[in-house]
Amino acid sequence: MRGQRAASAGRGFKSRGILQLASRPRQQSRKIRLPRCFPIGSAVFASKAPAARTKVVFARAPMAGGGERSRVPAGAAGLAVYVVDGSRRRRGCVARSGADDVALRAEDEAPYHAVALAPDAVLNLELGDPTMYEAFWREVGSRAATVIRGWQAMSYFSDPAALCWFLEPELEREVRRLHRVVGNAVVDGYHLVVGTGATQLYQAAMYALSSPARGDKPVPVVSPAPYYSTDLQLSGFYRWAGDANTFAGDECIELVCSPNNPDGAVREAVTGGKAIHDLVYYWPQYTPIAGRAAHDIMLFTVSKITGHAGTRLGWALVKDREVARKMVYFVDRSTIGVSKESQLRATKILGVVSDAYETPPAGDSGATAPRLFDFARRRMEERWRTLHATVAASGAFTLPEETTGYCNFNKRTVTACPAFAWLRCEKEGVEDCAEFLAGHKIVARGGEQFGGDARCVRINMLDRDQVFDMLVQRLSAI
Amino acid sequence: MRGQRAASAGRGFKSRGILQLASRPRQQSRKIRLPRCFPIGSAVFASKAPAARTKVVFARAPMAGGGERSRVPAGAAGLAVYVVDGSRRRRGCVARSGADDVALRAEDEAPYHAVALAPDAVLNLELGDPTMYEAFWREVGSRAATVIRGWQAMSYFSDPAALCWFLEPELEREVRRLHRVVGNAVVDGYHLVVGTGATQLYQAAMYALSSPARGDKPVPVVSPAPYYSTDLQLSGFYRWAGDANTFAGDECIELVCSPNNPDGAVREAVTGGKAIHDLVYYWPQYTPIAGRAAHDIMLFTVSKITGHAGTRLGWALVKDREVARKMVYFVDRSTIGVSKESQLRATKILGVVSDAYETPPAGDSGATAPRLFDFARRRMEERWRTLHATVAASGAFTLPEETTGYCNFNKRTVTACPAFAWLRCEKEGVEDCAEFLAGHKIVARGGEQFGGDARCVRINMLDRDQVFDMLVQRLSAI
Repeated sequence: MRGQRAASAGRGFKSRGILQLASRPRQQSRKIRLPRCFPIGSAVFASKAPAARTKVVFARAPMAGGGERSRVPAGAAGLAVYVVDGSRRRRGCVARSGADDVALRAEDEAPYHAVALAPDAVLNLELGDPTMYEAFWREVGSRAATVIRGWQAMSYFSDPAALCWFLEPELEREVRRLHRVVGNAVVDGYHLVVGTGATQLYQAAMYALSSPARGDKPVPVVSPAPYYSTDLQLSGFYRWAGDANTFAGDECIELVCSPNNPDGAVREAVTGGKAIHDLVYYWPQYTPIAGRAAHDIMLFTVSKITGHAGTRLGWALVKDREVARKMVYFVDRSTIGVSKESQLRATKILGVVSDAYETPPAGDSGATAPRLFDFARRRMEERWRTLHATVAASGAFTLPEETTGYCNFNKRTVTACPAFAWLRCEKEGVEDCAEFLAGHKIVARGGEQFGGDARCVRINMLDRDQVFDMLVQRLSAI
Repeated sequence: MRGQRAASAGRGFKSRGILQLASRPRQQSRKIRLPRCFPIGSAVFASKAPAARTKVVFARAPMAGGGERSRVPAGAAGLAVYVVDGSRRRRGCVARSGADDVALRAEDEAPYHAVALAPDAVLNLELGDPTMYEAFWREVGSRAATVIRGWQAMSYFSDPAALCWFLEPELEREVRRLHRVVGNAVVDGYHLVVGTGATQLYQAAMYALSSPARGDKPVPVVSPAPYYSTDLQLSGFYRWAGDANTFAGDECIELVCSPNNPDGAVREAVTGGKAIHDLVYYWPQYTPIAGRAAHDIMLFTVSKITGHAGTRLGWALVKDREVARKMVYFVDRSTIGVSKESQLRATKILGVVSDAYETPPAGDSGATAPRLFDFARRRMEERWRTLHATVAASGAFTLPEETTGYCNFNKRTVTACPAFAWLRCEKEGVEDCAEFLAGHKIVARGGEQFGGDARCVRINMLDRDQVFDMLVQRLSAI
């Protein structure tokens, strides 16, 4: 059956169908032709066969980058099967029977699965999906796995007596520890509020700062352009009032995103109003860590630290107890707390990150534990170098000037490597860069959505290697 | 060290401290005196010692119930250490090293941990924490464990091409399967929208039904009293307008909760307006399954099915594609989707529930798999019998009349066993039952909060055995 499937796949199988290759020797280097484009991010399922009986076959296309991405061919060859995500194999990974025995062994492990990126695939770089980090967590391996028993974490409560009663105490410990390891924020004297991603915490903070409401008038929320704005229509308490630099009212809430989304600029508050500091990119892979931030409300999210965007887990460091209490109330009312599973996983993941910097290198069976910020900085510097070179060569685009600074964490001067590229099209006749790029099958968010220039677009720099490589290739060809 | 801790614990240790007993034979039946009340739901930590070296010691108090709760003494004896939640032992459960090997073996398993319920403990029965189900999932054991690899489920997307792009396809399959197994809702032709608990889906549905807003006027939301109302202040699109039976306007959104929270009554829509059907208690342990519901919007949550309240995972079955699309938009804007970890766990848990009814009884290594609805119905019938007897004997209280009906799932006539008791105080001079019970250290939500009678309270029937037992004991003593 498996052999038949493989054979039919080889002859041209349906998009989003099942790819299952038996490891018969003659098939091991066979190339698979995919007749159609797969949506980026969609995985090809593999069946439940033991890994020993499966093999994913890679196209032998010419490489765009270097040896590091040895199994990821550039889109050039046109017909390629990529190594990506085995996450669809989860059911097979989960339970093994036995007295009270949960085991996931090498032979149960999902093999690398194939996601096809056809030469005419649409590159969706609109959202900041941080799938670049998958490669790191594969390298870390089983130490980063989270096991949750059927009977664990069933209650609404994590600590009924705590201000943030739905926050798992172990997550709180790991969050505080990580900030101490990195030195990017003061944690002592701050309340920790957990949320379903920074998105929910943004709303919780705006709710807290605008409540009690001033009669029926919603509080204006501003940010200097270009800015990242959430959809504020969802509340009657506050309303989006645009660019902080042109705001003329008296009372307001200012969103300060630093490094800034979309353009990576380091920012400070400009209005003197109540401020919410979005520091989700204030980590050493993206920007020099100049010191410990100590603002009234500081937002963070695992999405941008470790790449676990699907976990929907963020936190706020809040100076004022009453503001923290109102934020907790908001999260309670909108979702009755935050997924315990997400918190357990974040606890595990953040612990692994800190361990690699705090544990002696040779502690773990002689091998050096992979270090997240080192991995991500290396990868980001490489990508930014490539992008700058591509843009310079093209003549059609420009990027904000590169900035550098001394990083207390890296103990050296580093360049800023923003999570988004704020790309400006300089081509004559092009007024709308997003539209222009869409014509080249690159989907990015246009500058106007950030209160900025329509000749600019925001491009995600954190997608998987093959997507980034294809982006560079397409920009070169314009 | 461990022995020392145990010894000091035995001499009277601090509340919320560490309870760790070495299994020296002479200690095995030792009773621990706890000087102070622990908040209900807070666990006592155990250290990372292997289970073999730990033993939890139970007080030998007289039993309230029967043999089934053999390790759970009634609160009567006053000094008791209870068997509860080992969830605080998670870190110890998680990772074992090895090539690519995650294993959780019997000796890594968390021992039963102790939560003390002092004789003067405040019983918080305000929220519907469904911790009764922990006992079931302990019985199921490792088959219900979820393992999530470090690199799994990192993306924001589950299926970029789907209407509900953040819904894991495997969860969708298990949800549809469970509804087919139970026969409580039509699924064919319905769109599935996943949410961070039914709470978020309530808001998403109200947003969808009230959008586009009628100018600046928020849409009134009504429900027949007594009703369970979320805090609707959080939106400017809709406003709470109270009892549906007395609503006089033209356009409205009606919330239909059936069986009803707080009183367990089977409900139908009364206004003829757009309706949201909250069917979170329409499962065979709580009410006779009369047939497959087929309303426009039906809400469900794992909290009330399997007891996993901490998972914050609900879903809506939605007939109209455009309404479903707006609900997806709401969940996207408020939390950018739903925790993948929660979805993976719910997939596993719901699969185990369905398997027990669909797999031949002797299929799993000769043993019959524990069946969730059987467990919960047995437990609920037992509790309701006890409560009815207690209330009848007291003369101070009444309960709504018991109803029965033929259940298509159980294939027999069953009594309704609501998740909440809607208890009315008949004592002369008592106008506010919540206040009265608070004087007896029973915290419950007062009837006025549900638009109903202040002589009524809503009491959670799904807490752990020892809490229920102590509740019964206190009601008897009034």
